[in-house]
Amino acid sequence: MANDVLGSEPSRQVRALGMTTNIGRANARRIELRGFDLVDDLIGKVSYAEALLLAVTGRRPTRAEVGALDAVLVSLIDHGMQPSALAARLTYSGAPDAVQGAMAAGLLGAGSSLLGSMEQVGRLLHDIGEAVRAGTDPRSAAKREVTRILEETRRVPGFGHRLHHDGDPRGTRLLQVAQELGVASEEMSWLALVGAEIEAQTGRRVAVNATGAAAAILLGIGVPWRLQRGVAIVSRAAGLLAHIGEEIESPITPAVRSALRVASWLDDEEPDAGDRGKGRYGKENGRPDEHGEEGDLDA
Amino acid sequence: MANDVLGSEPSRQVRALGMTTNIGRANARRIELRGFDLVDDLIGKVSYAEALLLAVTGRRPTRAEVGALDAVLVSLIDHGMQPSALAARLTYSGAPDAVQGAMAAGLLGAGSSLLGSMEQVGRLLHDIGEAVRAGTDPRSAAKREVTRILEETRRVPGFGHRLHHDGDPRGTRLLQVAQELGVASEEMSWLALVGAEIEAQTGRRVAVNATGAAAAILLGIGVPWRLQRGVAIVSRAAGLLAHIGEEIESPITPAVRSALRVASWLDDEEPDAGDRGKGRYGKENGRPDEHGEEGDLDA
Amino acid sequence: MANDVLGSEPSRQVRALGMTTNIGRANARRIELRGFDLVDDLIGKVSYAEALLLAVTGRRPTRAEVGALDAVLVSLIDHGMQPSALAARLTYSGAPDAVQGAMAAGLLGAGSSLLGSMEQVGRLLHDIGEAVRAGTDPRSAAKREVTRILEETRRVPGFGHRLHHDGDPRGTRLLQVAQELGVASEEMSWLALVGAEIEAQTGRRVAVNATGAAAAILLGIGVPWRLQRGVAIVSRAAGLLAHIGEEIESPITPAVRSALRVASWLDDEEPDAGDRGKGRYGKENGRPDEHGEEGDLDA
Amino acid sequence: MANDVLGSEPSRQVRALGMTTNIGRANARRIELRGFDLVDDLIGKVSYAEALLLAVTGRRPTRAEVGALDAVLVSLIDHGMQPSALAARLTYSGAPDAVQGAMAAGLLGAGSSLLGSMEQVGRLLHDIGEAVRAGTDPRSAAKREVTRILEETRRVPGFGHRLHHDGDPRGTRLLQVAQELGVASEEMSWLALVGAEIEAQTGRRVAVNATGAAAAILLGIGVPWRLQRGVAIVSRAAGLLAHIGEEIESPITPAVRSALRVASWLDDEEPDAGDRGKGRYGKENGRPDEHGEEGDLDA
Repeated sequence: MANDVLGSEPSRQVRALGMTTNIGRANARRIELRGFDLVDDLIGKVSYAEALLLAVTGRRPTRAEVGALDAVLVSLIDHGMQPSALAARLTYSGAPDAVQGAMAAGLLGAGSSLLGSMEQVGRLLHDIGEAVRAGTDPRSAAKREVTRILEETRRVPGFGHRLHHDGDPRGTRLLQVAQELGVASEEMSWLALVGAEIEAQTGRRVAVNATGAAAAILLGIGVPWRLQRGVAIVSRAAGLLAHIGEEIESPITPAVRSALRVASWLDDEEPDAGDRGKGRYGKENGRPDEHGEEGDLDA
Repeated sequence: MANDVLGSEPSRQVRALGMTTNIGRANARRIELRGFDLVDDLIGKVSYAEALLLAVTGRRPTRAEVGALDAVLVSLIDHGMQPSALAARLTYSGAPDAVQGAMAAGLLGAGSSLLGSMEQVGRLLHDIGEAVRAGTDPRSAAKREVTRILEETRRVPGFGHRLHHDGDPRGTRLLQVAQELGVASEEMSWLALVGAEIEAQTGRRVAVNATGAAAAILLGIGVPWRLQRGVAIVSRAAGLLAHIGEEIESPITPAVRSALRVASWLDDEEPDAGDRGKGRYGKENGRPDEHGEEGDLDA
Repeated sequence: MANDVLGSEPSRQVRALGMTTNIGRANARRIELRGFDLVDDLIGKVSYAEALLLAVTGRRPTRAEVGALDAVLVSLIDHGMQPSALAARLTYSGAPDAVQGAMAAGLLGAGSSLLGSMEQVGRLLHDIGEAVRAGTDPRSAAKREVTRILEETRRVPGFGHRLHHDGDPRGTRLLQVAQELGVASEEMSWLALVGAEIEAQTGRRVAVNATGAAAAILLGIGVPWRLQRGVAIVSRAAGLLAHIGEEIESPITPAVRSALRVASWLDDEEPDAGDRGKGRYGKENGRPDEHGEEGDLDA
Repeated sequence: MANDVLGSEPSRQVRALGMTTNIGRANARRIELRGFDLVDDLIGKVSYAEALLLAVTGRRPTRAEVGALDAVLVSLIDHGMQPSALAARLTYSGAPDAVQGAMAAGLLGAGSSLLGSMEQVGRLLHDIGEAVRAGTDPRSAAKREVTRILEETRRVPGFGHRLHHDGDPRGTRLLQVAQELGVASEEMSWLALVGAEIEAQTGRRVAVNATGAAAAILLGIGVPWRLQRGVAIVSRAAGLLAHIGEEIESPITPAVRSALRVASWLDDEEPDAGDRGKGRYGKENGRPDEHGEEGDLDA
């Protein structure tokens, strides 16, 4: 059927439909990524971080750029038992044959408040860059942005950390690594100006955090701000996978489920019903994975 | 560009690409759902459940069928604070400007173990139906399926409930509603045979649960087993939305976050560090939603 | 283990953890939704739309409110072969045993540009309401909002439709239904003021579209603007389910896959390779669902 | 509130709730991943692939193991314009401020048919391993598995490729890299036995494909089969991110949207309406991204 239209000259019509890409191509014998032969040039020769940068920017990165991306990717892999890790583990427990769903559930928490805030920092630095390229001096550009942000919200993304209140050690380390690798970006210097401006306007000294440093580094190696949250997602995907692995071996969902059940448990009027309830509850903790003939988990 | 190929006779080529649908169509003045005029025939005249059945089955359902679907949809909306509700709330808290992500995260937990198990019951009943239509008597078909399932796993989907150990009240009620509406299906009678067979083989009497009854009813009103998990998802979407609304008004994520932080907290060696840690912790509980100038949530 | 802490008095500690909810509760014999007995009061007695409103608002809705919600839910179920429907169908084809993933993929497209734009209209009307309650007259409030929005972007959400350029028939019909049901809201009158203001400022008369009318109606029946995108998601979930059902019966993915393959196909240098490529291509169209011994779909 | 219970001795109660993890921990000054200091030992010192293996397996991998994982991750990054890439791009277009949703939508397609099939190969090799460790000789174990699989379905996962019908070049290359690195696993030898057995039973010689080789390699370096689909997801996340970047710069969604609209377009009865329709259509192609004052995309 499709052959009637496409059979004779397949590529022309479909290209006309506009569904073309410059990222990768394949035919029966060859696969290309950004013009490189995947098999001959890349597999076994470059690291994942290098291939990621190549795919996203379209050009072969330098060794230092790859090192900087690796540092960013390593820094955000995990941060203890986060809400997103818990979401992934709970989802896995409900749908154990669809790992992709559990990972997606965890990654969907990388939004404006958490992890994904790298996008806001990236945009802030991008906007300073636009102003600088239009002739504003960097300090004034930083001042204007900080003023605007502090008027709208109470905090500037990329600075401070609720747990690491004396400074996010990842932020410092990431900036140091970029320096050592020789890929310090002008965005990194603007980030410092933003920090100084926050101190000037609020009287508080707050350190660059992990997402702040990551955003400045990523802009410097060619990852646009709109894609930066995606880099955080790639990074955290590894941590979520580790959490799913741990959930398989030593699941926490049964305990969470018990706690949740208690949290939305109706008080029984009859005393024996209460006992029975408690009996079940203990039993469930004792044999968290056994459904036995007793039937469904909560539907 | 696309005009070169498509401009003169748009519909022919694209239909040839095979991307056609019989579900709905639209032009500048009219929108159709399964051939009905959405605006003139449906909006304000039929309920959501009726439109859902129309969309899925392609035919106008009877009043009784709509009533049965409403009963199924109502029965699975919520079941207290479930893992999927928690996953949705945690995800919302990380990405509050993307409600769609929070709802997706919650729905992704509707898999083989939880809620989505309706699919397995539906398939079981479908398989009995195939056997019956091929000449096997229903009782033998049920026996064969139960034997096979009990050999592979220890429980038959659609029967029993961990919390409702004396019988899932939703299951009983759903079957009753279907009887009253006059849409009792042959699948409902097979479900009873399956229950009898479970008792015969295990010596335990387990009642039909909500997903079991729902699957039998849905098959009877024309929803194939492969789509039944989707009906559970539609139903639970309403409950998840309510949970997101509650999370906005009285969030539980700060408390969960604190609990999680404790769960993956490094023991500090220095005593004062411990105090400081505790101080933060209390503060965080006291002002759970305030990021203030202190910076990022955990990235 | 959990018993040590929780065993004696389960509810106290867990409530203290803050994971409580007022939406629903359950014990062995009873399930409650917003204080109503799910089994005795709701299943078989109320429609899904009524249960949804009850769950979200916490109060029993009137008959007219339920009718208005049904109208909104019906109006957004489907709009022909949308990008989100295509995304769901493509995802189903890659992961056919995880319907929940396919539905989630489709729903994730309900963001700021598409379908989810109901949230922006809802917020606009909410902001006008805040201003009105603070003493501004409605016309001035509408004027201020329209001016601000037109300065920032070029269009006001809730008005106009690319396909329905002479007016979205769903918008008109929804407003009419709300009038007939007697649940016309003050938000509906503000929506009219916004429309007048758009015409005054741009010289163009644009009609209220489906999401505009839906937002005004939903605010009137108690659904806050932050949850309105979720109502659109519930609605569209039914349409996506119908598309997945159609994908199972008459899949479009093989044709799309072929078109995509052509779109990223390397030109073969050797003439016979080209032929072979074309041969494969035709074959694939002829037997779209057969993997046979030929192996993997594209990995 | 939570303080009442948790304030004095936070860690004890929450550990009792069972929400502990051995993957990572953090306090105000230190972050650990599997016992290593993230900042001092890992950032800037190890690659992302090394940190991923550390997180998932809990032990520091060898240089060769990291090289093998990098090869696997690089091999699956992209394969031209795949359905999952299209799903991600369409979703991005509907929800451009939620990149996490677009990536999740693309990743949700990594199921049993596509990409995620690595899980099935991993399980097959795992099952052979179990049999071998129980005393069966590898050849017999492979024979039994292949027989069983060919009876149930018509193809053995990990072998053959629809596009690469003369052999998936990635499969060969991956096995070669593993050999060169000295991390050839017993699973790789079993994979060869499986291939020989397929030829013996079907008379067809089919080569190991990318997911087949990847599964054998991953088992050899300590990634259990249940997590292997997750490794494919990490890999493809980079490719999806590149596609989202391309969608921002040269979007294909407008063309797809036009094609889809034609596909579900009602034929207009009135001739002038047809013209107008065509007019819109061409206009839309000409200005694919402009909503202008004309209003909503399709809701």
